[in-house]
Amino acid sequence: MTIDPVDLTARLVRCPSITPEEGGALQLLDRLLSEAGFRTVRVDRGGTPNLFARWGDGRNGRSFGFNGHTDVVPTGPREKWSVDPFGAEIIDGYLYGRGATDMKSGVAAFVAAAIDFVRETPPDGSVVITVTGDEEGGAEHGTVAILDWMDRQGERMDVCLVGEPTCPERLGDMMKIGRRGSLTAFFTATGVQGHSAYPHRAKNPLHALVALMGRLTETPLDAGTDHFDPSTLQITTIDAGNPATNVIPGSATATVNIRYNDLHSGESLTRWLDEHARAVTGATGVGIALRIHNSGESFLTPPGDLSDLIAGAVREETGLDPVLSTSGGTSDARFVKDHCPVVEFGLVGERMHAVDERVAVDHVHRLKAIYRRILTGYFA
Amino acid sequence: MTIDPVDLTARLVRCPSITPEEGGALQLLDRLLSEAGFRTVRVDRGGTPNLFARWGDGRNGRSFGFNGHTDVVPTGPREKWSVDPFGAEIIDGYLYGRGATDMKSGVAAFVAAAIDFVRETPPDGSVVITVTGDEEGGAEHGTVAILDWMDRQGERMDVCLVGEPTCPERLGDMMKIGRRGSLTAFFTATGVQGHSAYPHRAKNPLHALVALMGRLTETPLDAGTDHFDPSTLQITTIDAGNPATNVIPGSATATVNIRYNDLHSGESLTRWLDEHARAVTGATGVGIALRIHNSGESFLTPPGDLSDLIAGAVREETGLDPVLSTSGGTSDARFVKDHCPVVEFGLVGERMHAVDERVAVDHVHRLKAIYRRILTGYFA
Ligand SMILES: [Zn+2]
Ligand SMILES: [Zn+2]
Repeated sequence: MTIDPVDLTARLVRCPSITPEEGGALQLLDRLLSEAGFRTVRVDRGGTPNLFARWGDGRNGRSFGFNGHTDVVPTGPREKWSVDPFGAEIIDGYLYGRGATDMKSGVAAFVAAAIDFVRETPPDGSVVITVTGDEEGGAEHGTVAILDWMDRQGERMDVCLVGEPTCPERLGDMMKIGRRGSLTAFFTATGVQGHSAYPHRAKNPLHALVALMGRLTETPLDAGTDHFDPSTLQITTIDAGNPATNVIPGSATATVNIRYNDLHSGESLTRWLDEHARAVTGATGVGIALRIHNSGESFLTPPGDLSDLIAGAVREETGLDPVLSTSGGTSDARFVKDHCPVVEFGLVGERMHAVDERVAVDHVHRLKAIYRRILTGYFA
Repeated sequence: MTIDPVDLTARLVRCPSITPEEGGALQLLDRLLSEAGFRTVRVDRGGTPNLFARWGDGRNGRSFGFNGHTDVVPTGPREKWSVDPFGAEIIDGYLYGRGATDMKSGVAAFVAAAIDFVRETPPDGSVVITVTGDEEGGAEHGTVAILDWMDRQGERMDVCLVGEPTCPERLGDMMKIGRRGSLTAFFTATGVQGHSAYPHRAKNPLHALVALMGRLTETPLDAGTDHFDPSTLQITTIDAGNPATNVIPGSATATVNIRYNDLHSGESLTRWLDEHARAVTGATGVGIALRIHNSGESFLTPPGDLSDLIAGAVREETGLDPVLSTSGGTSDARFVKDHCPVVEFGLVGERMHAVDERVAVDHVHRLKAIYRRILTGYFA
């Protein structure tokens, strides 16, 4: 008897697992995987629920890993939904609910594929499932905690597939072999407050910030690389909060978010930002403090065996040749990449984080089939 | 019996006339001027107390006018004052209190000078005194209301001296023969909100504002003119109020204050700002709305008879040759200039609007003497 991935998605959607609530989702997977002969361990840390599961003794043969998350973002205003966001209703071939695409269906598809696979064609090796309950939040004690625990226990994955939605339009049109890095820079400019009529007695922090932002935005960071789009820099806020039109404010702040490719690192960008801030301070006399939050370096799993394996399975199941992309936001692949080669492949990301999030029932079945082909191919 | 301008200043300081409160100050002047043979009229408008007074029948000979205000800015925290801000205490040769320099002493000096002058040497002409209770506030119904009323009544000043503090360091070192204009521009940039990772799907209003502010600040407006300092432009605030570092905000605002000389007008600057905003919109696709508040055009009373008269009186009394300046913030001279030639001359502006505002007792006596010499010279 095989596991129906749509039924499993529905049961997971009914668990109200808004970060950091477990909502019963990991308990459900834990039970299911245990019954299927997986060794399961809850590796919760800092209040975050996490699940590790391994089929096979982990000592012989190769080890294929899946990674995903069962936590979901809040529903937003319930009255904007046309269905119960935790009801998992199926209407006209779509299953509706928060997490329907991001990513309870992905988790259901790989769990169902893995259980069927090890029962029907037990491999000479291990299948590892890692599922966190905090990918949408701070992620501080999520996949990172599972990987830390695995390192200490000598547990390993030789390769890992993250089941996040990756396809922009059609199931099979894209996989992700890396991600750009994301760095946020918080600037605080401190000048000298004064009267607008006497600017020579003041030092305007806004003029310094405008000069700095002008420097940072006037030329593109780069033109992209073989596998990466051009890096981008966006000013996300500038604030002085000064209501008095005859007053030059004493201080002002600005925040910049950079999505960067493999031509840069958090360190090189910090140096670059700092140099520009110093140059503006030198020219204006306005002090500029810089605080950096680097939420993930860029990384790349170069095209090769793993991407070939996945592309082959996708092609057989969908007829499409997936693009090897590094676009988009961050995911837990940024942590997994320090453990082993990692590629992401999953559904079309329809209405992720929006109201009336939904997944095509047919896609969930086909995603399970693709994951099953990948496992078969890997252990062949 | 002559009027002691220090005693009159003290009596005015004891009137708590924080804008728009009259506080008894105009009543006191009204009584004093009436007793001295002036025709006085309270020309209050819109809740603002104003006083007009004329000695002479206004039909024969020339008419010399004084203008000033008895309202004061708030005291700020009382505990920061070392004296009662409405106590008018005299300590070590200084009279302390809110309005001591700005400008109850100036008003006391010209009222005392005018009363002594018309009694001792009645001129063949008129002396007009105009005092408002709203110069520090919106000024909507202050000096403007007095001048409106005068126009309707056929009352006139041929020349006018505004008694605001004008001297930067020593009594007599500067008079003002004009003022720069002040214009405030409020920009609202409306783009398209989006995710920092996908800037091509958004339009960042902050990038547009930074480009616009860069254009407005990159080159000075001018290098100054014969009688004016260079015009200045200051960004007084930029605000987006966006706390989410992964979000490109949908809109943002910026405010710019321009102090401009006789090379510009509110109209020419509005056109200039609008052109730059349009250019940035053309380049970025971000809509930029512009709202203008022009609080006073620049103006100049060219050096001539009036400034010569005042400079002569100052020189005789202080030995100093006053600089003819157009620097500083706005004053009610910006309204008077539409009525007649206007020059400003008054005290050293020590601690104006600050705690422990004070005036040197000796300076008040000398200011009265200078005003008296001016009247004598004018009617000679
Ligand atoms: Zn996700
Ligand atoms: Zn004043």
